[in-house]
Order: sequence, then structure tokens, then C-alpha cells
Amino acid sequence: MTPPRAVVLLSGGLDSATILAIARAEGFAPYTLTFRYGQRHEAELEAAALVARAQGAARHIEMEIDLRSMGGSALTGDLEVPTGRSPEAMAEGIPDTYVPARNTIFLALALGWAEVLEANDIFIGVNAVDYSGYPDCRPEYIAAFERMANLATKAAVEGGRRLKIHTPLIHLTKGQIIARGLELGVEYALTLTCYQPDTEGAACGECDACQLRLKGFRENRIQDPARYATLGQRG
Amino acid sequence: MTPPRAVVLLSGGLDSATILAIARAEGFAPYTLTFRYGQRHEAELEAAALVARAQGAARHIEMEIDLRSMGGSALTGDLEVPTGRSPEAMAEGIPDTYVPARNTIFLALALGWAEVLEANDIFIGVNAVDYSGYPDCRPEYIAAFERMANLATKAAVEGGRRLKIHTPLIHLTKGQIIARGLELGVEYALTLTCYQPDTEGAACGECDACQLRLKGFRENRIQDPARYATLGQRG
Repeated sequence: MTPPRAVVLLSGGLDSATILAIARAEGFAPYTLTFRYGQRHEAELEAAALVARAQGAARHIEMEIDLRSMGGSALTGDLEVPTGRSPEAMAEGIPDTYVPARNTIFLALALGWAEVLEANDIFIGVNAVDYSGYPDCRPEYIAAFERMANLATKAAVEGGRRLKIHTPLIHLTKGQIIARGLELGVEYALTLTCYQPDTEGAACGECDACQLRLKGFRENRIQDPARYATLGQRG
Repeated sequence: MTPPRAVVLLSGGLDSATILAIARAEGFAPYTLTFRYGQRHEAELEAAALVARAQGAARHIEMEIDLRSMGGSALTGDLEVPTGRSPEAMAEGIPDTYVPARNTIFLALALGWAEVLEANDIFIGVNAVDYSGYPDCRPEYIAAFERMANLATKAAVEGGRRLKIHTPLIHLTKGQIIARGLELGVEYALTLTCYQPDTEGAACGECDACQLRLKGFRENRIQDPARYATLGQRG
């Protein structure tokens, strides 16, 4: 029997590398989708391709969408990346690294590809615990997207297929996500989490994303295998 | 008082030129958004820019998204464009020109821009009458998208703003759409409806889209001012 196909949104970060492993463990043939959307660093895209290859994705595509033309976020070059904030400070309010409607845009494109592939399943590594400031990471948002998607496509409306958005990380802490990934053999050395890696692709160890990641590894009492520019931030 | 901003999805076709005029008539400052998504013809993009300029859009952007990488539609080059079908045949089943999840993708990108612009309003020229085969043109789909959008963004969740998707054409026939546009002074000569225009941008007069358009003008007892390659199709 051929395994059912699933579209997996892959950023090159720790969370999406983990959901790719979960999709495989659940018996899906994973089709990984990464977006080139005006990020400031190429290293993230390279990490996504490496993760896809290491985990045997059936196909990996890198799709270009020009979000820069609309402006509005640190990740696309308009605002400053915040650094040195505590997890408590991050939990208050929505960070400036917010990309307008990002998950809606990414899920919409995943939905299109899922229809072409005749896949009923989309995996996304959203998390409502550590980074609760993003409205499009909450379960009620995901449920509303899924409902909309099941009214949107030929596959659902004519074909009677039921699309499901899988969010296996949504209620896990960063430490729990890493524990699950380690069980499944995820090579976290390949992943890149940092918002501002150096020209060699080494992480800064100081931005919000690096801090959360390092805390997650500390909770598992293991050293993060990723490369950091400042060794003092590790372990 | 500065007029409220609205994002208007503009394709260069007749329907979206009409909604742009309606958005202006309702007092909005229109920000028009066109997608370059691997269509086979540039003429459609040029028509959109002309329509935006003619109607005084506050800003017009042409955003590139590479839908070709996922395949699956006549409009992006994978299948044949159907020609010579009757309106009755078109109404049966979903045509091959269907682009997977197209309106979901377009509305998602419009949502992102609306958030950046601090706009609460998005206009889309969907129509559930003449072309009922597209699932993402139906009122229940639009309502589900709007509900999802109001859970997705910082503006809605933190700012308490309420996003509205306007679909002023959804229940109109092509003839009624044209009648409304003529009242508002839309220059239909600038618009391009054809799925397969020639190299000069003249319409074929034979594809599904041309046939519906020509029928709409006949119902208004006026001649379509657009350029057709085959004069015999006009009037």
C-alpha cells in the first residue's frame, strides 16, 4: 500500500523539523514546503532543504512569495529584531517579528499543493505555549482555517474529501518538543532557529528564538548541537 | 477626514474592475493587489495596472507567487483551456481552469496587506451565479474565510478591529455586473477577460470567459468595447 501524502510546512527551524518526523512516524509520505518570502537570511532556507533530505521527504519545494512588497515586519526587513528579552517579556504582547497573516498565507499555499497532490493532511508546527503572542498559532484559529478549507476546494466539495490540519506541537513546551524529536531521531544540528544568524549560518544565542531553544535543550539536560557564534550562550 | 483604506483584488478582468469602482463609490481609498502567479499571458497584468491607474487606486502592487511549482491547472500551464462550451456546459462541474485554493491564497495575501495598511475591508469580485463551479466563490466559503481572518491577525485579536470581505457581485449575473459598472463609469475597454488572448492582447471571443462576457454585454444591448481577434464574435 502506498502511504498517504501529507504536506508539511518546513521552515528549517526546530519545530518544523520535529513535525516532519512526526508525520513520517504516523505513516505519511511527507511533501515539504518552504517559503522564500523576503527573509533576511538564506541560511534558514538551506536548513529546510537539509532537514527535508535528511528525513527523506518525498518532494521538497521552495516557493517564492514576495511579502516585502507589502512591508510590516522585522522578518521582512521593516523593523528591528528584538534581542535579550526574557521568556516572560516575550509572552507579553505580540512580538515585532510578527509577519502579517503569515500562517494564513502559508496554510493557503499548503492547501493548494495538498489539492494537487490529492493529500488530505497538512502539518504545521504552530505552538500556543512558549510563543502565545501570535494569534495564528492558537487552536481556535487552526479550527477556523480547517473549516474554511473544507468549503474551499474541489477536493472537499466535489470529492467529499476531508482536509485535516495537524498541529502536534500546539500544546507542548519547547522542552517537550525537543524530547519528542529526540525520540524520533531528529538531527537538530541541521536546524536553524535564530532570527539573526551570522554570515556562516551560526546562531546568535541571544534573540528570543535562540533563548527559547536553549532553554528547551537545558530542560532535556543535553547540549544543543547547533552552531552558535557565542559559545557562552550554550548548554 | 481621510477615507478608510480597502484592499481590492484586481485581476484585470471585468468583474474586478467593477468592484474597484464599487469600493470607490462606497467611500474607500482603494489599494489594488494583482498577482503574477504563472499565468500564460502578461496582458492580464497590464490590464490590471491600467484599470488601477484609470480609477485612481491609492497604490497598486503586483505580487509574485510561484504557483507553477505546485502544478495542477490550465491557467498555470498544466492543462488545456476549454473553448466553445455553452454556458450550460460551463455550469456543470468545475472547469479545468480551476486553480487549486486560488481565492484562499489571494484572500490570505490580501489579509496580510490589509493588516499592514490598517484596513478593515477587502473587496473580491467572486460570483456564484454564472460560474458556480468554483467552490471558493460561494457565500458560505467567504463567510468561513472572514471568520477565520478575524481569529488570525494582531489587528483583530489585539486591536479589536473587525475585518470584512466585500463580495458585491456574488449574486449578480454578468449582465447585472456590467450594468452596475457602466453606471459607475468603468472603462471596460481597459479590461481583459479572455483566457487565451493573442500576442497583442486581443480576446479570442470563444473561451468560456469571453462567451460569458459577450452575453453580458448583449443583455445590456451595448457592444463590448474590448478588442477581439475575431470580429464575428462581437455584439
